[in-house]
Amino acid sequence: QGTRDHPPAHVALRDRLLTAVVACFKRHGAAAIDTPVLELRETLTGKYGEDSKLIYELQDQGGELLALRYDLTVPFARYLAMNRITNMKRYHVAKVYRRDSPATTRGRYREFYQCDFDIAGQFDPMIPDAECLKIVHEILSDLQLGDFLIKVNDRRILNGMFAVCGIPECKFIAACSTMDKLDKMPWEEVRSEMVGEKGLSPEAADRIGEYVQLHGGLDLVEQLLQDPKLSQNKLAKEGLGDMKLLFEYLTLFGITGKISFDLSLARGLDYYTGVIFEAVLLQQENDRVEEPVSVGSVAGGGRYDGLVGMFDPKGRKVPCVGVSIGIERIFSILEQRVKASGEKVQTTETQVLVATPQKHFLAARLKLISELWDAGIKAEMFYKKDPKLLKQLQYCEDMGIPLAAIIGEQELTDRVVKLRDVATREEVRMPLHQVCKRFRNLEI
Amino acid sequence: QGTRDHPPAHVALRDRLLTAVVACFKRHGAAAIDTPVLELRETLTGKYGEDSKLIYELQDQGGELLALRYDLTVPFARYLAMNRITNMKRYHVAKVYRRDSPATTRGRYREFYQCDFDIAGQFDPMIPDAECLKIVHEILSDLQLGDFLIKVNDRRILNGMFAVCGIPECKFIAACSTMDKLDKMPWEEVRSEMVGEKGLSPEAADRIGEYVQLHGGLDLVEQLLQDPKLSQNKLAKEGLGDMKLLFEYLTLFGITGKISFDLSLARGLDYYTGVIFEAVLLQQENDRVEEPVSVGSVAGGGRYDGLVGMFDPKGRKVPCVGVSIGIERIFSILEQRVKASGEKVQTTETQVLVATPQKHFLAARLKLISELWDAGIKAEMFYKKDPKLLKQLQYCEDMGIPLAAIIGEQELTDRVVKLRDVATREEVRMPLHQVCKRFRNLEI
Repeated sequence: QGTRDHPPAHVALRDRLLTAVVACFKRHGAAAIDTPVLELRETLTGKYGEDSKLIYELQDQGGELLALRYDLTVPFARYLAMNRITNMKRYHVAKVYRRDSPATTRGRYREFYQCDFDIAGQFDPMIPDAECLKIVHEILSDLQLGDFLIKVNDRRILNGMFAVCGIPECKFIAACSTMDKLDKMPWEEVRSEMVGEKGLSPEAADRIGEYVQLHGGLDLVEQLLQDPKLSQNKLAKEGLGDMKLLFEYLTLFGITGKISFDLSLARGLDYYTGVIFEAVLLQQENDRVEEPVSVGSVAGGGRYDGLVGMFDPKGRKVPCVGVSIGIERIFSILEQRVKASGEKVQTTETQVLVATPQKHFLAARLKLISELWDAGIKAEMFYKKDPKLLKQLQYCEDMGIPLAAIIGEQELTDRVVKLRDVATREEVRMPLHQVCKRFRNLEI
Repeated sequence: QGTRDHPPAHVALRDRLLTAVVACFKRHGAAAIDTPVLELRETLTGKYGEDSKLIYELQDQGGELLALRYDLTVPFARYLAMNRITNMKRYHVAKVYRRDSPATTRGRYREFYQCDFDIAGQFDPMIPDAECLKIVHEILSDLQLGDFLIKVNDRRILNGMFAVCGIPECKFIAACSTMDKLDKMPWEEVRSEMVGEKGLSPEAADRIGEYVQLHGGLDLVEQLLQDPKLSQNKLAKEGLGDMKLLFEYLTLFGITGKISFDLSLARGLDYYTGVIFEAVLLQQENDRVEEPVSVGSVAGGGRYDGLVGMFDPKGRKVPCVGVSIGIERIFSILEQRVKASGEKVQTTETQVLVATPQKHFLAARLKLISELWDAGIKAEMFYKKDPKLLKQLQYCEDMGIPLAAIIGEQELTDRVVKLRDVATREEVRMPLHQVCKRFRNLEI
């Protein structure tokens, strides 16, 4: 329940998507690591806030207490601490597990891929952070998913905002996790959860309400740097200063057009300490609505400078910033698009089917296909002794195999192969070595 | 315990290996599927014989009883039955889990990759079976692991042999699983386990002892077809007839040189019903030993015609044959070889480092690297405002980055980039668009 098999058409489409994402990660110089799907339970506890109840635990079978990984960030932090690595740019594409109520219609499952890129190390402010945003921008542009917006904020600005609104520090994280729901529910509901469940004063909530409506660009940063209350708060000032720097770098990258500094962005996870961001796709309903509607988050991330220290016996910190691409959400969108277009996803890469119109040609076919395989050509044949030619050609059409290498009596005598273009039905007879050469040329 | 993190050098080497294996699977026209890492416990029970105790079970958390997959074959059979697929050629590369005592020195872990290729469907005998052996031959040749041998046998021949040796049918599977240990222990020990633990008569064990010493090629098949006892047994005769056919096809593939029909090969798993095979690497210790010594199995597989039917409510059978490549064993061998050679495994694919010899060039570097990324070039830069040029060039050497794109005052004024070959130290100045062009040419 909540997990699923992926048939070939799924896997082929997903591989296409993952290839594009990984290509971007590699373009930015990241190395890949891999960590076990099983982590010690204690590694995962206390990292995910309210969501910790969604961790899959394994039976105690006389060994350590284990759980399935919940994301790739916590294992990465553990990896850095265990190996005392203070400097690393890595990507990791792997499945994670959550005991969530699966909303399979919205592309949410209990087992799903995460694609993470993270930069660990002590560097000058906002340079790696800007690169993470550049990566989101590149990937969403490459995939041609339509218009998108990357919202950015900073946990320090949020905390400063909470402080100047009169919220006690012990309630910052709770307030954050409620604010994180602003993309799913209107401010009124979020406000009532803040006042009701989280115990904030109505006045404090209203003051927050004013801030969270603000979004803009560098101008908004400048404006808030002049804000009489916020500018007095040390954390907020630091965050706003860095936000200004970030916008400077994003301007050099030429991507500020898709970036929105948005005070309502909170992100649910406990471990963020600085910049946070989230990318949403914008749905253009032609000219019917003025402002494009968000169809949900497709990437997110932020800075977490304290997480690695939690795994180090001496608490040594390694500052990190990273991004996670919401591959499953993007997959659902692409899948719908493929369905709508009627495109047939090719599930194999077969270049040629070895076929025959005559009986008793199994040996000849086996010999020919073996030579094709040995020449590196992707080839298939029917596993029947005497298949019908029509069926063989039909299979080519069904599977999108472009060519058939046909042999019969005459071809065997003449020591040639008849190469048939399945689409045009054109046929050319040529010796085998020429066939191999032809495929080699196709590959260049 | 028994699981491990994989650092970048590991992952890079493993990816190289997996790419070669998957290329072969695709060359043979297979499509990829993916199944969840979690299966229902009942799916896995009763499929692995004595090894069932090694299955990882999850805690019952108010849902179904789940376990981590033990291999990829049983999930494939379940997938076929659930989706009523009667015809499919698929590959699956994924991790499986076993609560084994990890023998980490021999490359055995509790979490490890399996690479499987299987052909499901009702076809003419031995054609897909021969293809599986061809695949093993191609992969082991491609990877240049040294000399190897593929042992083949047939469960029907084994069962016939047991029958004519006077072993009751109910003890066939037990006898098989003991015989499977012949590659790890001498016949004497296997014999005593057969007689002691498995309750065979000493005479029957001795009769088996004579057969299991036999190995050879087509000649041995012919000889056994004339064997007065075996030739009277229906199952054995069927198996030997198909073995003859198999050798005929393998001759057409030109690979019989590496194939040994070996009556001692049993394979541990319950579900095999026909051909079984296992590939071993042969260690040449120069001229010191006459016969090369086996260093362990690197691939194995066989025919399992009954497994899919176990998952179908009406017991409908789908004949299957498949091969599993022992990627972890092969990885250990390659890793040792890399270590011995002193080769440094490249963990990133970065083509150029954007560098500067001067202070206050962060903005210029960010602008340049952004343009390189947008042109699809794999580029990195230091995340420091004012890095030292020597450190930047040193980084190129450490990471194997072949080029540095250097900008300083003069380059900025002249609107050029200085492209430095890290190895030769040659430097060329050229406008940016020419740099991009140069990389595009390199890729062709």
